[in-house]
Amino acid sequence: MSQTPSSVPASRGPADHNVRDQIVEAAGEHFSHYGYEKTTVSDLAKAIGFSKAYIYKFFDSKQAIGEAICAKTLSAIVAAVEEAVAGATTPTEKFRRMFKTLVSTGVSLFFNDRKLYDIAAYSAGEGWPSARAYCERIRQILTEIVREGRESGEFERKTPLDETVHAIDLVMQPYVNPLLLQYNLDVAEEAPAQLSNLVLRSLAP
Amino acid sequence: MSQTPSSVPASRGPADHNVRDQIVEAAGEHFSHYGYEKTTVSDLAKAIGFSKAYIYKFFDSKQAIGEAICAKTLSAIVAAVEEAVAGATTPTEKFRRMFKTLVSTGVSLFFNDRKLYDIAAYSAGEGWPSARAYCERIRQILTEIVREGRESGEFERKTPLDETVHAIDLVMQPYVNPLLLQYNLDVAEEAPAQLSNLVLRSLAP
Repeated sequence: MSQTPSSVPASRGPADHNVRDQIVEAAGEHFSHYGYEKTTVSDLAKAIGFSKAYIYKFFDSKQAIGEAICAKTLSAIVAAVEEAVAGATTPTEKFRRMFKTLVSTGVSLFFNDRKLYDIAAYSAGEGWPSARAYCERIRQILTEIVREGRESGEFERKTPLDETVHAIDLVMQPYVNPLLLQYNLDVAEEAPAQLSNLVLRSLAP
Repeated sequence: MSQTPSSVPASRGPADHNVRDQIVEAAGEHFSHYGYEKTTVSDLAKAIGFSKAYIYKFFDSKQAIGEAICAKTLSAIVAAVEEAVAGATTPTEKFRRMFKTLVSTGVSLFFNDRKLYDIAAYSAGEGWPSARAYCERIRQILTEIVREGRESGEFERKTPLDETVHAIDLVMQPYVNPLLLQYNLDVAEEAPAQLSNLVLRSLAP
């Protein structure tokens, strides 16, 4: 019905992807100095040297830029977890590796790239789609591990699968959720092993 | 060796206790409007209508006043937990009640007396003695319950007691620690029952 506004490019080629990446990168830098919450798209445009209208060609809002930064960061954590899990043979070992990798990747992000961490923490606090998708993916990986352990007889089968997965998810949340992890850094080294032991005892047939 | 400074009263009778309580109460009100961190003892003195020197007769520092407010608040939570545990007969039921009461008392404090909650959260973040004593007391109650369950044969005895208690303590922290509880309010209703079930499965002999 409505016509495509003439300001929107007809197609998005590799050049557009470059500009998107450029905006995301520059925005990450800018947020790190002035904070995500205090920065407006006008501030960003000035800092990057693009017009505000030009930025709006690529992102609908400041949150869309934050989302892009956040999704990239959280994808890296998921990739690390998937790799760690793929290297294990038993469900028990998969669970241990998942928990350990989640925490160690999150902690290293916190200490090495604080600006990305802060945006991830903010996104988790605000329930952004990228943060929700991340939690959902972690839950899927956990569900697959528990299901596999039940099928192989390594884990108990009396408790409904949903209930088991949900409770384990609650145990992991303080270390998975970037908003909470920052308060648990002092136990982040030892907690995954100790909590994995407890969870695995609860899963014993 | 050194003489008692003449400004310190020779004894602290009931009148002194009244003044202490008065300062604590007025400080709680003041902190609630201006925040604990932003308030100085001078601000407090002005607001209460006492001289700064007079306040220093009763409290060494602003933190000492905050500690008094915090200790009172956390004692109320401990008292509620002790009462709930005393009303149960089995270690399983004691554990469930402890967890549930800890969370419900914390949540009701958060919603009904936000100013006291904020000081408790701040004290937990800063590792104040009152907050550490509170965590220590909760851990003691937990240890007693687990020990009783091991003695009665209700809980397993293979895992070292310390390890078991420490892991359960980690599971409860996000709901016990006021600094963390405020981020977990959306699951605070269901989490104690679901996590209690998981913990009790891990304790099965």
